[in-house]
Amino acid sequence: MITLLGAGNVATHLGLALKQQGYTISQVYSRTYDSAVQLAERLDAEPVDRLGDIKDGAVVYLCALSDDALESVLSGLTLSDPFLVHTSGSIPLSALSAYSSRYGVLYPLQTFSKTRPVDVASVPFFIEASNDTTLEYLTGLASRLSRTVHTLNSDDRAALHLAAVFACNFVNHLYTLSFDILKQRDIPFHYLLPLIDETALKVHALSPADAQTGPAVRNDTNIITKQLQRLSDPVQASVYRCLTDSIINSTKQH
Amino acid sequence: MITLLGAGNVATHLGLALKQQGYTISQVYSRTYDSAVQLAERLDAEPVDRLGDIKDGAVVYLCALSDDALESVLSGLTLSDPFLVHTSGSIPLSALSAYSSRYGVLYPLQTFSKTRPVDVASVPFFIEASNDTTLEYLTGLASRLSRTVHTLNSDDRAALHLAAVFACNFVNHLYTLSFDILKQRDIPFHYLLPLIDETALKVHALSPADAQTGPAVRNDTNIITKQLQRLSDPVQASVYRCLTDSIINSTKQH
Repeated sequence: MITLLGAGNVATHLGLALKQQGYTISQVYSRTYDSAVQLAERLDAEPVDRLGDIKDGAVVYLCALSDDALESVLSGLTLSDPFLVHTSGSIPLSALSAYSSRYGVLYPLQTFSKTRPVDVASVPFFIEASNDTTLEYLTGLASRLSRTVHTLNSDDRAALHLAAVFACNFVNHLYTLSFDILKQRDIPFHYLLPLIDETALKVHALSPADAQTGPAVRNDTNIITKQLQRLSDPVQASVYRCLTDSIINSTKQH
Repeated sequence: MITLLGAGNVATHLGLALKQQGYTISQVYSRTYDSAVQLAERLDAEPVDRLGDIKDGAVVYLCALSDDALESVLSGLTLSDPFLVHTSGSIPLSALSAYSSRYGVLYPLQTFSKTRPVDVASVPFFIEASNDTTLEYLTGLASRLSRTVHTLNSDDRAALHLAAVFACNFVNHLYTLSFDILKQRDIPFHYLLPLIDETALKVHALSPADAQTGPAVRNDTNIITKQLQRLSDPVQASVYRCLTDSIINSTKQH
């Protein structure tokens, strides 16, 4: 029996995957009642929007909350020594020690949006726990959800999360800037999809430094100057400049 | 019968694809003789490293050269009214008009590295030509190479190329920065691959703005500050700052 705290993207995908694996979700907490109800319905759970309504007796209290929300939720809990688990890449395990004697981290390294199904079995999970018993429990739980489970300490997890911000969040934003550039001229974004796919696939086989192509790695100042002139938006131009400088800098080092 | 000028990544992949489709490559020119020989061998062609050795009589002279090299090669040609075609995203069609009366552009939108095979049939080709006859010829040639062929004018092609720099070259560089961050702590880069794949796949179904996740789109200043502190490399930190600002700016607009 699991209690889920949070009803956002991560809570939704983990909750659904846990249910599919036969776990019972007893309660779903969100400070927004509607969000709690929506997810609780899909999980056959009870929705709650007050921390005081969260019941004792769940095996795990899984906190899939934004980093900002986590601390205020934890400090508002009235449970007796709950097994607390958070799902954050950047919050250390020790952040839970003030609230319980049994705690752990279950970090799924993936980008989750509510409307898009994700194959949780292929998501790598990174776990850390306060003692051997909690580690064993989390290893079992993660292994039922996913084919790929690693233990990782808090400092390495923070580095992994930072790398993921570059490789996912920043990458996706570059797709947004491409989208905007094309939209100005009514060129369909889907023209770029084979290129986007190949760019991702390429680093399965080559190191990213070896896979680099384009004007900046060739230091082709002709094209770089022309492309900068084409960017009328100052924010786009500053991203272009910043990444071009970083590629030139990186090419010298690799 | 096609003469290939250039022996780099694009020349290699186009040459191989043309040969596979039954085209004869008569000569391969590169100013570096070894490069000409290496590619010419794979294409059963004659290698040449002097522009004066390029023979008249080929149906097309396909210039798969860097933008910097193109002009000096064109001005050194001694052919009589050759059908000239370049493969550049950023050079306008009109750049060929001084060198012939028949010319065109064949721009494959993909990232090519010599060591990695590419399925050319799934690469979108963008063509433009000086008149209907050359357009018809290039349409036929591109359609034998690829399932996806579009005509596109020079200005739109330059915008598409710029968008591709963001969606491919800059994206790949962010993979390099992730790689570097992980390497500092001996964390394997392959942990990120399912995330990288999903980030690319996601924008097949959602607009990139809708697909955005992470600290910056939530304006989670707590994590942003912590992650910036973790980046000891000033270039990495400046890329982080620049993209975070751009995401925050973009989130306001979308």
